[in-house]
Amino acid sequence: MSDDKAEKGMQVLRKLFGEDVSEPQFPDDLRRYTVEHLFGDVWQGEDLAIEERSLITCTVLIAMGREAEQRIHFRGARNLGIPRAKIEALLTHVAHYAGWPVSVSANRNLDEVWPKESP
Amino acid sequence: MSDDKAEKGMQVLRKLFGEDVSEPQFPDDLRRYTVEHLFGDVWQGEDLAIEERSLITCTVLIAMGREAEQRIHFRGARNLGIPRAKIEALLTHVAHYAGWPVSVSANRNLDEVWPKESP
Amino acid sequence: MSDDKAEKGMQVLRKLFGEDVSEPQFPDDLRRYTVEHLFGDVWQGEDLAIEERSLITCTVLIAMGREAEQRIHFRGARNLGIPRAKIEALLTHVAHYAGWPVSVSANRNLDEVWPKESP
Amino acid sequence: MSDDKAEKGMQVLRKLFGEDVSEPQFPDDLRRYTVEHLFGDVWQGEDLAIEERSLITCTVLIAMGREAEQRIHFRGARNLGIPRAKIEALLTHVAHYAGWPVSVSANRNLDEVWPKESP
Amino acid sequence: MSDDKAEKGMQVLRKLFGEDVSEPQFPDDLRRYTVEHLFGDVWQGEDLAIEERSLITCTVLIAMGREAEQRIHFRGARNLGIPRAKIEALLTHVAHYAGWPVSVSANRNLDEVWPKESP
Amino acid sequence: MSDDKAEKGMQVLRKLFGEDVSEPQFPDDLRRYTVEHLFGDVWQGEDLAIEERSLITCTVLIAMGREAEQRIHFRGARNLGIPRAKIEALLTHVAHYAGWPVSVSANRNLDEVWPKESP
Repeated sequence: MSDDKAEKGMQVLRKLFGEDVSEPQFPDDLRRYTVEHLFGDVWQGEDLAIEERSLITCTVLIAMGREAEQRIHFRGARNLGIPRAKIEALLTHVAHYAGWPVSVSANRNLDEVWPKESP
Repeated sequence: MSDDKAEKGMQVLRKLFGEDVSEPQFPDDLRRYTVEHLFGDVWQGEDLAIEERSLITCTVLIAMGREAEQRIHFRGARNLGIPRAKIEALLTHVAHYAGWPVSVSANRNLDEVWPKESP
Repeated sequence: MSDDKAEKGMQVLRKLFGEDVSEPQFPDDLRRYTVEHLFGDVWQGEDLAIEERSLITCTVLIAMGREAEQRIHFRGARNLGIPRAKIEALLTHVAHYAGWPVSVSANRNLDEVWPKESP
Repeated sequence: MSDDKAEKGMQVLRKLFGEDVSEPQFPDDLRRYTVEHLFGDVWQGEDLAIEERSLITCTVLIAMGREAEQRIHFRGARNLGIPRAKIEALLTHVAHYAGWPVSVSANRNLDEVWPKESP
Repeated sequence: MSDDKAEKGMQVLRKLFGEDVSEPQFPDDLRRYTVEHLFGDVWQGEDLAIEERSLITCTVLIAMGREAEQRIHFRGARNLGIPRAKIEALLTHVAHYAGWPVSVSANRNLDEVWPKESP
Repeated sequence: MSDDKAEKGMQVLRKLFGEDVSEPQFPDDLRRYTVEHLFGDVWQGEDLAIEERSLITCTVLIAMGREAEQRIHFRGARNLGIPRAKIEALLTHVAHYAGWPVSVSANRNLDEVWPKESP
């Protein structure tokens, strides 16, 4: 059963971060919880689509100023086909609920991992 | 033009919080910014649907533990027709990105302002 | 296997919060994760004693100002036989790393759920 | 020398919170640090006027959502003769750097401990 | 009227960050809100002097650990003629209300963007 | 008496960070408070062992995402002889009370300042 969860978790990780993603380099328990529990169980829940979970995750990461993880999940959002304009609108909205500084930093991270296409 | 924004802002406020909502009892500038700028301009942006803005706002409020505002926006989500199961899935997801305690408190607030229907 | 985790989780919950503790009143998934994953797996890890996990949990709850959960885990610490003086020293220490206000509020919560013995 | 700091600390406490203020009901060390170190030393520093320290303290308390302490320091600001309009402008400003929800909650606390005079 | 706000906003931005400051490189809406609303309206409010708004902004940025923005607003404070000793006193004060770590990091940022003059 | 506290403070600093540690490069008051008050008084309290204070400090620093200070106190924990497995278990536990992202970042910092021994 855990193997099943691990496989499901890796499927979500590949969908978000690419086919060649490997298991995270975490201490054993944290790695296991991340693959089997977080991505293999929580992210599987059917009441939210994966695109919604991606947006929600980005929202938390922007609001709380978790910059390293933002860079990872902005790429995830892109891989899911979420339009960049939606992330821009998201950080503009969040500026008003968590303060300008977190959105300004999020925007800098977004520009770095997901550059604006030239016109 | 400001009058236009004020009217648009009140439309969103009525959609979220009911027809009889009145302007918030804030100091003058903060009230003006809330109605004309926040709801009359930011919430009008077309790259996110109002239901998405509601979910995003709830996400920030849960993640940062802003309990008084949660109670207001959980009602807003309900008025928009968002299913309760979606808010439940949201706070379960956020537990893993902002910690169990904020979700436990959010769940208590949800139960108070939006009781589970009996089966 | 999940049943095993659920039983182990309930054992920790009873040790912390008393024999008559019942499963938390959360949405289904969050309740399952709390009993089976959080208390049934994470709290079982052998590199930290349960008393250390209790202190660590109290530390996070004080530092982040999670007041409702503090009240629960201060009682848990008491049930484990942790001396009140240790919690007092903890909140005094944390005042310097997370700011006075969180410790002042934690102290008020401590006084309410775990009154100082009269001399 | 500590006695001197204790006396200086109580002087600031009386200036902020009234002549009949008593020592805070904290665990011994935290009470000593609060009176002798925080108010008896930190608040004595000459590079910031007491009114500036009051505003700065209110700013931190609003931004971080420390509501119980806000109620105490809003009264302190009032006792120092800081105009209510300045606190209103403060929380309106902070809304943009720490998010609307902390300012909305701060405003509710302000209304409770320092009611708006009728015109 | 928006043009008027934009011009007022740019005036504050130039006063804070120098004559050659350009509009921030943000997504369209966020840039417009920053120039016209935040600096063109909020920072214009007459109940707080610009030096007070600068100190308040630095306070929020220190307390919440918003390091990239600190570096910008420490320079702003310097351009307004606020003495360095005042910022030093500010971060020493905030250490007690938001914890030592945010002030230690703020001090490192201050040293980088506003070096101590040699004696 | 202050000299005594300064000496005691430096003893703790040397125990945590090595014999050749020097006074922190902070503004005068903050440096004095750090050596004499924080390490010379708070860390001396007898209700918590120095190893417990180290773990508690690491806990706050992980939970609040204070990364620069984490790197310092992870080294301190190592110097005190705390096993790396305990810090790994700590950050795995904290992931559930403050969210995955702070623990993922803490783990990266841990790997950098305290590399895993090869098997």
